[in-house]
Amino acid sequence: MDNLTIALDAMSGDFGPRIVVPAAIQALSRYPNLSFFLVGDPTEIGFFLSKENNQLVTQYQNNDRLIIIESTSIITNDMKPAYAIRHSQGSSMKMALELVKDNKAQACVSAGNTGALMGLSKLLLQSLTGIDRPALVATLPALNNQNTVVLDLGANAECDSDMLVQFAIMGGILAKSVLQIAHPRIALLNIGEEDVKGLDKIREAASILKSNDQINFIGYLEGNELLTGKTDVLVCDGFVGNVTLKTVEGLIKIFMSSIKLSLGKNSLFMKLLSKWLQRKIAKNFGYLDPGRYNGACLLGLRSIVIKSHGSANQKSFFAAIEQAILAIQMNIPEKIASSLSSALSKSE
Amino acid sequence: MDNLTIALDAMSGDFGPRIVVPAAIQALSRYPNLSFFLVGDPTEIGFFLSKENNQLVTQYQNNDRLIIIESTSIITNDMKPAYAIRHSQGSSMKMALELVKDNKAQACVSAGNTGALMGLSKLLLQSLTGIDRPALVATLPALNNQNTVVLDLGANAECDSDMLVQFAIMGGILAKSVLQIAHPRIALLNIGEEDVKGLDKIREAASILKSNDQINFIGYLEGNELLTGKTDVLVCDGFVGNVTLKTVEGLIKIFMSSIKLSLGKNSLFMKLLSKWLQRKIAKNFGYLDPGRYNGACLLGLRSIVIKSHGSANQKSFFAAIEQAILAIQMNIPEKIASSLSSALSKSE
Repeated sequence: MDNLTIALDAMSGDFGPRIVVPAAIQALSRYPNLSFFLVGDPTEIGFFLSKENNQLVTQYQNNDRLIIIESTSIITNDMKPAYAIRHSQGSSMKMALELVKDNKAQACVSAGNTGALMGLSKLLLQSLTGIDRPALVATLPALNNQNTVVLDLGANAECDSDMLVQFAIMGGILAKSVLQIAHPRIALLNIGEEDVKGLDKIREAASILKSNDQINFIGYLEGNELLTGKTDVLVCDGFVGNVTLKTVEGLIKIFMSSIKLSLGKNSLFMKLLSKWLQRKIAKNFGYLDPGRYNGACLLGLRSIVIKSHGSANQKSFFAAIEQAILAIQMNIPEKIASSLSSALSKSE
Repeated sequence: MDNLTIALDAMSGDFGPRIVVPAAIQALSRYPNLSFFLVGDPTEIGFFLSKENNQLVTQYQNNDRLIIIESTSIITNDMKPAYAIRHSQGSSMKMALELVKDNKAQACVSAGNTGALMGLSKLLLQSLTGIDRPALVATLPALNNQNTVVLDLGANAECDSDMLVQFAIMGGILAKSVLQIAHPRIALLNIGEEDVKGLDKIREAASILKSNDQINFIGYLEGNELLTGKTDVLVCDGFVGNVTLKTVEGLIKIFMSSIKLSLGKNSLFMKLLSKWLQRKIAKNFGYLDPGRYNGACLLGLRSIVIKSHGSANQKSFFAAIEQAILAIQMNIPEKIASSLSSALSKSE
C-alpha cells in the first residue's frame, strides 16, 4: 500500500492539540503506512505528546512519521472568513493547507472555522473547472444499510441554482465511484414534493437537473426522508444542510438519554437492562452516531481537505482522519474532475 | 364555558373527509360546548358520517353542532399559491375562512396547501398592524418538561430580517401569555453561535433584537439545541423551520422502529420486552410524537387559523382541532395585538 501523508491543523476546533494529538497517535498505530505533519504550537503539541506512549512517539518521530511544523497564530471560530483569510499568514490552518499545495501532504484535516477553511482552500488549492464553490459533503448512513451522500453541509450558507446543480453532479459522481451505485438517485431537499413548492433557486435547479439525461434526478424530498435511503444523493444549501445535520445529532443525544430515563435506575435489574439495551440499540442504529461520520470532505477542490466538527473528541477526530485516508485512497478529486466536464456540459 | 365554533376545511390534506369527519365527531363527543361547520362535498362528508355512530351524528346535527356547508372545489397541494387564490371561489378552504371572516366561526382548521392557506388568510382575515406576514408557530415540547415556541414552520419560505424580528416579538408574546414565562428567552436558529456566523438577514435581525430592551434576546442557537429547552422561543425562516420539523418527525419514526429491530422477535420474551419498552419510551419522550403537536397556528392574523399536517391521521387532526380550541380560549390574536405595538415600536 502506498504511503499516506496528511497535514493536521493541530490548533483547530474547540480542543486543539488536546484531541488532535491523541487522535494522530491512534491513527499512526492503526495505519503503518501513514505519516503526519502536525501544524501548530510546538510547546502545546509537545505537552500532549508527552502524555502518550513515549517509546512510540519517539519511534514515529525518528521515522519521520510525525513531523511538527511550527505555526505562529490560530484562526478562531469568531473571525469572519474574509478577516481570517487576510490575517492567515503563519496560522496553523493556512500552513497545513500549504503543505498540501506544495505536494508535501496529500490531504489536510482541520476542525477550524468552516468559512475560513473553505476560503483558504479555494485560494490555495483551487476548485475544479466548472465548480464555483466547493461543498462540504458527508456520506450519511440510512435505513436498510443504505448510504446517502448529503451536500452542502455548511460550506456555503447561500447558494444559487447553478451551485445546487454542481453539488448534485459532484454528489452523483461520488455516489457512483465511492458507493458503487451505477445510476445514483439524486434529490433536492425541499419543503414539499410538488413541483411548485419551495424556493426559486431550488425549482430552477430542478428544471436544469431534469433536462440533464446523465442525471437520475428523482425530484424533491422533505426533511422526514433524510435518513430513509429514498435517495443516494441529497442536495441542499449549506445553511439548511448544517441545521439539518445538527438537528439529527442533537436528537440522537436526546434519544439515547431518554432510554436511560425511561428505564430509570431504581434497581440493579433496571440498570443492567438499560445498559444492555443501549448497547443493543447503539449497535443497531449507532450508524447515526455523529462521531462515526465526522469528517466532511470539501468536494470540488483539486486536493483533499477534510473538515472535522469543531467539537470533535478524539474518537471523532480519528474518524475525520480516516475520511482523509479514504479520500486519498479513492483519489476523489481526480475522479470528480474526470467525470465533471461531460456531466456539466449537459447542464448548460 | 363559552360556546366554541370552528370551521373545518373538510376536503383538505391527503385524506380529506376520511379523517376530518371522524376527528370532528371525536371532538364533539369530547367538548360539549363545541360546534363545527364541515365545509366540503356533502356526499363525501355524508358517506364518512354514515360510518360513525348514527344516533350521535343525528343528535349533533339536530342541535346545530354539526352543520355541513357545501363547497364546490378543492385547492390541491400541487397548485401554486397565486393560482390557487385566483381560483379559490367556492373552494372548501376559502369558504371555511369566510365563515371566520363573517364571525360565524371563531377559528378555521385546514390540512390544505400551506401557501394558499397563508395567502387566503391574509386576504380575508388580514394581518395585525405591524406584521408583514403571519408565521406558522407551534409549541414543541423540549427536555425537562420545558416548551419551545418555534416559528416560522413553513408559511414563509423566504424571510427578511424585519420578518424574523416580527416573528421573534410575536413568539415572545405567545410564550409570555400562553406558557406563562415572564421574560421568555428568544434565540435565532443559526449555523454557529458566534456573532459573525450565518446569513445577513439573521445577523441583521440579531442586531435589531439586541437593541430592543423589551426582548430577552439570548443570541444564536444551532440545530442540535432545538429540543433541549435552552430557549423559550426559536426563530427561523419558514424553509429551515419546515425542513427541521420534518427531520425531527422522520427521525423519531426511525428511532421507534429501531427499538423493535434492536430487540428482534426471536422469542416471546423479546417481543414482550420490546412492547413494554416502547411504551416506556413513548411515555417518556412521546412528547416528540409528531401527531401530538400537530396543528400550527398562523400567528399574526386578526383571527385564528390552524394548519394541520397534510398527512395527518384522525388522531393528529384531532390534535389540530384542540389547538384551535386552545387558541380561542386563550384569545391569542387579541393578546398578540395588544402587546405588539409597544414591542414593535422599540425595534424601529
